[in-house]
Amino acid sequence: VTVPTDDRGLTLGDGLFETLLVERGRLQFWDAHLARLLAGCVTLGIPDPSAANLLTAAGDALERAGLQDSRAVVRLTWTAGSGGRGLDRPRAPAPRLFAAAFEAPVASSRGVSLATVAVRRNEGSAASRLKTLSYLDNVLARAEAARAGADEALMLNNRGELACAAAANLFWIEDRRLFTPVLECGVLDGIVRGAVIRAAAGLGVECLEVRAQRQGLGAVPMFITNSLIGLRQVDRLDGEALPADPLADRLAEAIAAA
Amino acid sequence: VTVPTDDRGLTLGDGLFETLLVERGRLQFWDAHLARLLAGCVTLGIPDPSAANLLTAAGDALERAGLQDSRAVVRLTWTAGSGGRGLDRPRAPAPRLFAAAFEAPVASSRGVSLATVAVRRNEGSAASRLKTLSYLDNVLARAEAARAGADEALMLNNRGELACAAAANLFWIEDRRLFTPVLECGVLDGIVRGAVIRAAAGLGVECLEVRAQRQGLGAVPMFITNSLIGLRQVDRLDGEALPADPLADRLAEAIAAA
Repeated sequence: VTVPTDDRGLTLGDGLFETLLVERGRLQFWDAHLARLLAGCVTLGIPDPSAANLLTAAGDALERAGLQDSRAVVRLTWTAGSGGRGLDRPRAPAPRLFAAAFEAPVASSRGVSLATVAVRRNEGSAASRLKTLSYLDNVLARAEAARAGADEALMLNNRGELACAAAANLFWIEDRRLFTPVLECGVLDGIVRGAVIRAAAGLGVECLEVRAQRQGLGAVPMFITNSLIGLRQVDRLDGEALPADPLADRLAEAIAAA
Repeated sequence: VTVPTDDRGLTLGDGLFETLLVERGRLQFWDAHLARLLAGCVTLGIPDPSAANLLTAAGDALERAGLQDSRAVVRLTWTAGSGGRGLDRPRAPAPRLFAAAFEAPVASSRGVSLATVAVRRNEGSAASRLKTLSYLDNVLARAEAARAGADEALMLNNRGELACAAAANLFWIEDRRLFTPVLECGVLDGIVRGAVIRAAAGLGVECLEVRAQRQGLGAVPMFITNSLIGLRQVDRLDGEALPADPLADRLAEAIAAA
């Protein structure tokens, strides 16, 4: 599968994507992924795809990869389409859809290590709340974390506030309450992030969406979430060991059952 | 010309570009564009292209478009290459080069209007100093300016400091001195920006690279610069008329002669 080199997704990062976990052909959290993609189209000001076309593209990609009966990952990409030179979109953008399927990463309950990185989230752009094709800062953050010997990056915004990982959301536990950075901090509006917030309410656990400075964060239980890994404990932050908390396991069970 | 849909330039905005003005086959400011592209490869951590390959690609693109004897624009794109799923690059990235040529925009001495937009530059990412394929914030800024009835955006960073336009650098004149936002404000390291700073020195005019808040900027003479338009006066900022200054014309002449 190819796209023309004048596609604005390629030339300018002008577009959106979704990465979904698939269990034997069933797209997990499909409604939430679809809703986020459609909301992103409004923010970007591009026409939106139909749910039917997205589902067909996902199914075709799974079949091409021979993964229709497996635990798999589908990535759906929706670009702003072909667009000549320069920043201005054509009067009638014709977005382009493509999909790819991959084997799902091996499920693991091993904890992950995080390293605070220098590259910051752009809290001043609506794009920081979306999965857009302009994802270079995330690539650079992950690479910086890897150079520091960590699995994932802890990204702050330009105010020094906690935001998220390069490809995951961030939670921590203090005084039996759950905390996560509020979206305004430049946080991707993660599907599992939303599921965890709802699951916490279901368990009677208070979850606060907050603006919090990195230096205010002690060695407390912490976990990260995304659509592929679900919920994973952080066992090490900037070289310091973090304690575990059974609440993380209860939340993991609750979202798996959702 | 097409690229595979697993190209990281397309899936993640992982790559760089340069847009050059070409006069009858001669690439303007070629050395500066090449140096910026190579420096960007170091920042991104991807292999760099050879100057010979870039020049060949540019020449081929001009020929395909029948523009080898015209005033034209060449865009060179250097992606991180194909890369599977996820943020991590393959162990040995194989970047991909492509080029496209366009007719040059009609030269104009008409002033441009600017509107201050809500979307901010990410001063906390090295990518904000580079021409990367993650250019969505610039697209959104330009669209926001257009909705406000302006030609171009005035972008601030997350600290509220002046940064640049969506596709140009920014200068203003006060007390016979020239001012421009310092790169640390999240400013693209523009080729013509550099040429203007050198030209000012040649004219014996002091040029200060500064951190300046939007609210401190009065109705002073202002101009924007980029490789395609050269230097253009701003005649209107957020609806307010700005005065002209003959220094802008002298600088325009100096960079045209460079």
